[in-house]
Amino acid sequence: MPNDGSGGGDAKGTVVEGDGGRTAMARNIQSLERAAAMLRLLAGGERRLGLSDIASSLGLAKGTAHGILRTLQQEGFVEQDDASGRYQLGAELLRLGTTYLDVHELRARALVWTDDLARSSGESVHLGVLHQQGVLIVHHVFRPDDSRQVLEIGAMQPLHSTALGKVLSAYDPVAHSEAVESDRKPYTDRTICDLDSFEQLLDVTRARGYAADVEETWEGVASVAAPIHDRRRMPVGAVGITGAVERLCRDDDKGALRPELIAAVRDCARAVSRDLGAGRF
Amino acid sequence: MPNDGSGGGDAKGTVVEGDGGRTAMARNIQSLERAAAMLRLLAGGERRLGLSDIASSLGLAKGTAHGILRTLQQEGFVEQDDASGRYQLGAELLRLGTTYLDVHELRARALVWTDDLARSSGESVHLGVLHQQGVLIVHHVFRPDDSRQVLEIGAMQPLHSTALGKVLSAYDPVAHSEAVESDRKPYTDRTICDLDSFEQLLDVTRARGYAADVEETWEGVASVAAPIHDRRRMPVGAVGITGAVERLCRDDDKGALRPELIAAVRDCARAVSRDLGAGRF
Repeated sequence: MPNDGSGGGDAKGTVVEGDGGRTAMARNIQSLERAAAMLRLLAGGERRLGLSDIASSLGLAKGTAHGILRTLQQEGFVEQDDASGRYQLGAELLRLGTTYLDVHELRARALVWTDDLARSSGESVHLGVLHQQGVLIVHHVFRPDDSRQVLEIGAMQPLHSTALGKVLSAYDPVAHSEAVESDRKPYTDRTICDLDSFEQLLDVTRARGYAADVEETWEGVASVAAPIHDRRRMPVGAVGITGAVERLCRDDDKGALRPELIAAVRDCARAVSRDLGAGRF
Repeated sequence: MPNDGSGGGDAKGTVVEGDGGRTAMARNIQSLERAAAMLRLLAGGERRLGLSDIASSLGLAKGTAHGILRTLQQEGFVEQDDASGRYQLGAELLRLGTTYLDVHELRARALVWTDDLARSSGESVHLGVLHQQGVLIVHHVFRPDDSRQVLEIGAMQPLHSTALGKVLSAYDPVAHSEAVESDRKPYTDRTICDLDSFEQLLDVTRARGYAADVEETWEGVASVAAPIHDRRRMPVGAVGITGAVERLCRDDDKGALRPELIAAVRDCARAVSRDLGAGRF
């Protein structure tokens, strides 16, 4: 009984059987997929939506959408504003998301090394992993001065323009596919969007072992990042520093990063890799 | 077809109809409730669990549990370890949890005031809201020194023993019910667990407008917190500082907080309340 507005559970008919080799894929549970789509919808764009908006965006009857939203609300995944009746994401997501970080082995191993990198470089440090079509920031150490800074743990960065994203695209085949298939938006005049140029950039990244981003994502901001490997030599993440071009770039060549900062980032990536069990060579 | 191991979606039978006045409550979607229970299970205790553990903990057939886990995995809510086959929470929860923070009005209004409180008090600042049976930390400003500190955004604190929790229990009737009905564990020799003593403490909290915790939750640690009200004068959260008893308590009376710190916390709570539209009086 799909989209019949009863607001009840999934009927048997919602389990798509067969479909040749895609059987396992097709056996997913429709109410869960719809609930996940609602959470993604509430995480993007407007972020506070009424029942009608949600139902029409996902092509669902209002009754069906309401049944899912009510259950999500009871479980703490969405909250409803008393005054407007609009829905937004709920507190349980924050609690669970923080628990995800607590069991993140890469993050746990990287904590002390990223602190040291922030101190030695004087810049903010980000640790990123591939998630969906971008880089998910799983750790962020503030620049060690007294300035007000916004925590970026849980934020996403593009694969094709940031140093973290280029490192993942160069070393992780899944990230590479995502970057190649994405539309590679131009964030600044310097963003490399053309596929051939992007592939050449990844060749350079693999050849020298690090990636840079000089005003390709944010005007006035540069970053440099290096890959982290685990005991099976698989690329599991990237670590890098981000800061003003005036501090990160060479005085004699504004398009090039200071060599001592590149060295510090690569030292950090090697140390975390070693801590994860990667070989020395 | 509940628990039949087919791994498919919910059957019609999972929608519990009627039940007098509880019709709306009873119409929740069983596969979503089960998925939420799995995420809660993975967020507590072991945090990495095999299929059999998950199925038996929730009283589900393995096939049913596997169908839900596979869908959760496809949506990024759980991840499966390649080597052990065990499940853990997934990265999508971190992304969504961070988005929850982005739309949190109380948190947005409190950012500058909590920064100022950390500077003026020299201590770490926490902003908390009621979530389930505890206090969810939605903002944390580090103590303004160069020490290494663990970010606690997304962490939970008990209602009955912390300053934030006592403030919420004293001012928010829902939090009060949760605190009264909870088992109020003794974390230290000084934790107040007895119901009559706890209720007296809440009377005192309401009379003086703030709550304190001197080694009732953590040995050697004290905290003080005050309530935040919105434009309808509803208690929407609490803000407080936490630090070593040697710094927070009076030299002449180690059980009492320094008055200038209490004043700074209450000033901050009033400022955030005003920013949320609460009246001056």
